[in-house]
Amino acid sequence: MRLADDTLSATFFALADPTRRAILVRLSRGQATVKELSAPFEMSGPAVSKHLRVLERAGLIQRGREAQWRPRTLDASPIREVAEWAGEFKKFWDASYDRLDNYLDLLKKEGKKNARRS
Amino acid sequence: MRLADDTLSATFFALADPTRRAILVRLSRGQATVKELSAPFEMSGPAVSKHLRVLERAGLIQRGREAQWRPRTLDASPIREVAEWAGEFKKFWDASYDRLDNYLDLLKKEGKKNARRS
Repeated sequence: MRLADDTLSATFFALADPTRRAILVRLSRGQATVKELSAPFEMSGPAVSKHLRVLERAGLIQRGREAQWRPRTLDASPIREVAEWAGEFKKFWDASYDRLDNYLDLLKKEGKKNARRS
Repeated sequence: MRLADDTLSATFFALADPTRRAILVRLSRGQATVKELSAPFEMSGPAVSKHLRVLERAGLIQRGREAQWRPRTLDASPIREVAEWAGEFKKFWDASYDRLDNYLDLLKKEGKKNARRS
């Protein structure tokens, strides 16, 4: 498999950085220029631009064409793929609750049995 | 933020590889030895072991202690964190459906208006 074909890996890689995730959260509140996106980070312009390129390649942000400032907007559709992939494992993180449920059922049955005996 | 503290980044990084995701899918069907996990991949033993170490560091797999074979098991709790992070963006990928809904509502209203007129 060529890495370029593997959009899910590109998305996961892009999300594997707290600055890039913070940029996406900021863009979820509305479009922003590179200057606005850089403001919260103690980071050089080129460092922020590099993060933006990673996000852009993964299809997570789009670059406006209408203005000189080229504001960035969020494209959440790759995040949907991530949610769907992760959702396939839901039954495994629910499993611990199921075990607790079974245990409580067992306690209830035992309680009834003891009540009949006494 | 130190990278070691950032478990979500470690999880996303571990998932940014199709072989590592395939290993987790395999483990979702039950525990497996390194030999069993390596079988489907045209990959050297050390290459598979390296992938397993990345998954282990991210807390996605656990190594059994009971047997000589040390079977690996899935721990899906970090995937839950991923699902929760991604779920925060749900309204953005639903947005396109909402727009379609609004458009269909508009068409319906227009249709009724035209029906009254004729």
